[in-house]
Amino acid sequence: MTGDRIIALSGGVGGAKLVLGLSHVLSAENLMVVTNTADDFDHLGLRICPDTDTVIYTLSGLSDPQRGWGRVNETWKFMEALRAMGGPDWFNLGDGDLALHVMRTDRLNAGETLTDVMRQIAADLGIGPVVVPMCDQPVSTMVQTTDGPLAFQHYFVREQCAPTVTGFEFAGIDAALPNPVLMEALDDKPAAILIAPSNPYVSVDPILAVPGLRSALKQSKTPIIAVSPIIGGQAIKGPAAKMMAELGASVSTVEIARFYQGFVDGLIIDEIDRHLAAEVAAFGIEVRVAQTVMRSLDDRIALARLALSFADELRERDGQ
Amino acid sequence: MTGDRIIALSGGVGGAKLVLGLSHVLSAENLMVVTNTADDFDHLGLRICPDTDTVIYTLSGLSDPQRGWGRVNETWKFMEALRAMGGPDWFNLGDGDLALHVMRTDRLNAGETLTDVMRQIAADLGIGPVVVPMCDQPVSTMVQTTDGPLAFQHYFVREQCAPTVTGFEFAGIDAALPNPVLMEALDDKPAAILIAPSNPYVSVDPILAVPGLRSALKQSKTPIIAVSPIIGGQAIKGPAAKMMAELGASVSTVEIARFYQGFVDGLIIDEIDRHLAAEVAAFGIEVRVAQTVMRSLDDRIALARLALSFADELRERDGQ
Repeated sequence: MTGDRIIALSGGVGGAKLVLGLSHVLSAENLMVVTNTADDFDHLGLRICPDTDTVIYTLSGLSDPQRGWGRVNETWKFMEALRAMGGPDWFNLGDGDLALHVMRTDRLNAGETLTDVMRQIAADLGIGPVVVPMCDQPVSTMVQTTDGPLAFQHYFVREQCAPTVTGFEFAGIDAALPNPVLMEALDDKPAAILIAPSNPYVSVDPILAVPGLRSALKQSKTPIIAVSPIIGGQAIKGPAAKMMAELGASVSTVEIARFYQGFVDGLIIDEIDRHLAAEVAAFGIEVRVAQTVMRSLDDRIALARLALSFADELRERDGQ
Repeated sequence: MTGDRIIALSGGVGGAKLVLGLSHVLSAENLMVVTNTADDFDHLGLRICPDTDTVIYTLSGLSDPQRGWGRVNETWKFMEALRAMGGPDWFNLGDGDLALHVMRTDRLNAGETLTDVMRQIAADLGIGPVVVPMCDQPVSTMVQTTDGPLAFQHYFVREQCAPTVTGFEFAGIDAALPNPVLMEALDDKPAAILIAPSNPYVSVDPILAVPGLRSALKQSKTPIIAVSPIIGGQAIKGPAAKMMAELGASVSTVEIARFYQGFVDGLIIDEIDRHLAAEVAAFGIEVRVAQTVMRSLDDRIALARLALSFADELRERDGQ
């Protein structure tokens, strides 16, 4: 029997938009968000988890709507003081945001798992849906570039994505274990697994690369639906399109279909890419065309609804 | 031959006032400040050094003139966010102040000594005088109270000094080594050693309790002069007077003389305590009477000058 729970795999800003839409449509107990932790890194001795925090801030209403990351009404006194003392200032840490990093680091150092720490923080912030990191073991995306390997945040923030990408490595992935909370949820057969419109290479692929996680998702025999992050040959945000071009792929939603072929059952592509629907379908993937640019909360909710009804159709089709 | 260097032993707010006065009178290379580190503690995984930081902020012009501790123009977004996440909020950490704690903790965890970390930070903040912690090993003042033992900051901040004090223990002191930078300065025979008007029990005594430090100061055969922190039977700031009363001592500058007898050569007492000069002298201590309440910068400078000329007199008297 299929349960009512939806499992969403999410990176940062783009993924959090769909997650927010889902949270408005689903009851809290029916939404579980699995976040990418391969962007996580240690900075100034603090454990920073950009994607997980973006989801947490988005769901708690604390996120900054302009920047997309970090907290609204943030102040930057810490950075100012750090700079005056010659500290590293390439990664911006807001004063309020620091509370999360300091508290998390303290608890991790005391031996708590990231899952437990984030669960407690989510509860304190009044977040209903379960938000779990893909795993509790540290995994670090290394971006292979023509200038040599770069830790993800060095590539993304310090170098502003300027170096030319040749590939990716998820350091530590072999020792990672799929989040047990997720594995338990899969035992209950979720109603659908949604892949948010996040960067396939550095946001979604690390999640799927956790040993056993990809096959566990597939074996749950529930529809797996992705939302394409490429719209009209461009990414709304982040380096996905630039990476695709540098890796020699066509910058197109078709490439997203190729990337997810054999794994996803359905792909939601944007209106602007309607003419590519047949090419996507050729990969054995069901296609839905929709307005996927999420500017307003209504856009987020509409896309969430569409993804859920797409999942319903696929389930009915397969008699599940 | 006597050098020109003055070594000042200091606790927090009160001590830093005299240190600031000294910094206006002496050239930077002739002032070394030794700070109490027995108030230091770990909070949220961060190493906090209240007395050292107060001296650093005071000398860099960053200190808040009203509060005495912390930074001027401070903001409190971190505390607000911490509270919202159910974090411990009994110890106030300002947003700018956090930069110092985070940077220090990161460097200490990387294996640097507190001395090296603070030297670098002082240099980055443009501080001329050398500021050294009494030792690089962790020492923790435990306040013995009728309610049981309390870590110093728990007594001082969390419990607002309410519990009745029965004694003190400096945990870790047996393994502490006098700061080597201080020991080297003592080899050069300083012109004077000044004990700032800090709490004798919890600010100065921990410094003198570092094994070998007290005797090294004494053996430098240079005048040791203290400024009484008790004025007219009261402490300007902090729990010194309350502690004295609870320990069964008379709350008087005479008690300060008793406390430092056999160690200091001279004691500076306030005008209001002029009638106690003979009682102080009876401990074999030279006395000077002065205006010791430091409200303005001019007050700080005047007291610094007086302490220095007092030292000159004692040196000349002893033919040093």
